[in-house]
Amino acid sequence: MVKALILIADGTEEMEFTITYDTLVRAGIECTSAFVPRGLSPYGSSDTSPPLAVCSRRVKILPDVTLDPLAAGPEKYDALVIPGGMGGAVTMAGSTEVQNLVRSYYNHPEKRIIGMICAGSKVAITAKLPGQPITSHPSVQSDFSVAIDFDYREQDVVVSDAVPGKATLVTSRGPGTAFPFVFTLIELLCGKEKRDEIVGPMIFPSGTVTGYPL
Amino acid sequence: MVKALILIADGTEEMEFTITYDTLVRAGIECTSAFVPRGLSPYGSSDTSPPLAVCSRRVKILPDVTLDPLAAGPEKYDALVIPGGMGGAVTMAGSTEVQNLVRSYYNHPEKRIIGMICAGSKVAITAKLPGQPITSHPSVQSDFSVAIDFDYREQDVVVSDAVPGKATLVTSRGPGTAFPFVFTLIELLCGKEKRDEIVGPMIFPSGTVTGYPL
Repeated sequence: MVKALILIADGTEEMEFTITYDTLVRAGIECTSAFVPRGLSPYGSSDTSPPLAVCSRRVKILPDVTLDPLAAGPEKYDALVIPGGMGGAVTMAGSTEVQNLVRSYYNHPEKRIIGMICAGSKVAITAKLPGQPITSHPSVQSDFSVAIDFDYREQDVVVSDAVPGKATLVTSRGPGTAFPFVFTLIELLCGKEKRDEIVGPMIFPSGTVTGYPL
Repeated sequence: MVKALILIADGTEEMEFTITYDTLVRAGIECTSAFVPRGLSPYGSSDTSPPLAVCSRRVKILPDVTLDPLAAGPEKYDALVIPGGMGGAVTMAGSTEVQNLVRSYYNHPEKRIIGMICAGSKVAITAKLPGQPITSHPSVQSDFSVAIDFDYREQDVVVSDAVPGKATLVTSRGPGTAFPFVFTLIELLCGKEKRDEIVGPMIFPSGTVTGYPL
C-alpha cells in the first residue's frame, strides 16, 4: 500500500492540508498526519497524544501522531507532504528535524516524492535542497531569489526531477491549486488510471477537470 | 459582522467543510461549527466540550460547539451551511433538530441563506422545504424524484429564491464544486467586491477563476 506522511502545525492552511489528505485517501493511499510542535525535541517526542493543530482560519484538526523523526522516514512512507499557511510553514521551515527529514526523503535510494504547496515551499530553502525548478505562493516568491539558485516558475504545479536518482519535488501555489497539486501526487504515486478513477465522483465544475479548463 | 453556522458530524466530507469554513473566514465572516451527534436530544446538549468529528476520510476536526438548537437559530446567524459526506448528511437529514433548524432559517422574516452541498442537500427533503430548484451529489439525485416536487438541476451551483420572502437556498454538487459554492455564499452575504478581493491570494489555476474557466 502506498503511504504518505503529511505534516501539520499551528497555522497550517487547513484547506491545503485537508484537500491533500482526503484526496490521497480517496486514491487508496494510507495517510498519516504528523504534528510539528514549535521547538520539537531533536530526540523526537514521547507524546503519543498529539495536540490539536489550530489552523490558519481557526479550524482545529487533531493530527494522527506527533512527529517522531525516528518513525517518519522514507523507509516507511512513499511521499512527504508539506502544506502552506504562513504560521505552519515558518514552524516547519525553522525545524531542524523537518529539514533533516526532507533531506532524508530527497536522498533516499528508492526514489521518493516530496510535495510542498504555498508557503510550504520555504522548507526547500531551509532544508538546503539543490537549486531546481520550483513554485510557491507569490507572497514568499522573493525568498527564492536570495542566496539559492532555484528556477522559480509561476506555474500552478511544478514537477522537478532536476537531480537524477534524487526525489521528485512537486510544488504548487495556494489553496486554489490544491486540487491540481494532489492529483499530480496521485498520478506520480499510483498512475494516471487511479487519478482518472477518483476525479469523477468529486464533480469538478462543468467545463473543467480537477478545476482546470478541459 | 456577518455570521455563519456550519454543521459537522461524524462522516462529514472534510474538504467540503474546510473549504467552506476557511473561505468564509477569509471573507471576514464569523464562522461557528456545530457538531450534530447521532441522536441529539430534543432539549439541546449540555455538553460544552464538543466531541471530535471523525470525517469521511478520517480527518479529525474539533467543532467549535455542540449543536444547541436554542442557540443556533436565524436570530443569531445570517447563514446555515450543511456539508456533504454521506455519513454526516444521513445524521443531519435524520435529526429532528436539524430539520426544525433548517425550517426556522427558511421561514425567518429577515431573509437568511441556507447552503447545502453534495449529500447535504438531502436535508432539504427531510426538512420538508417546498419544491424548488436544487442540486446535489449525483449519488443522491434519485432521492429528489420521489414524493417531493423539486426541480433538480445538474448545475455546479443552484441559487433558489423560489418562494418570495423565504430564505435563499444555495445548493452544490461535491468537493470539486466547493469553491464555486462558497464564493456564491460570499457574494450573497458580502457582495461581489468582497468575493473578488479574496479570490486573488488563493491563486486559482491559470485560465480560471475559483476553478471556473475564465
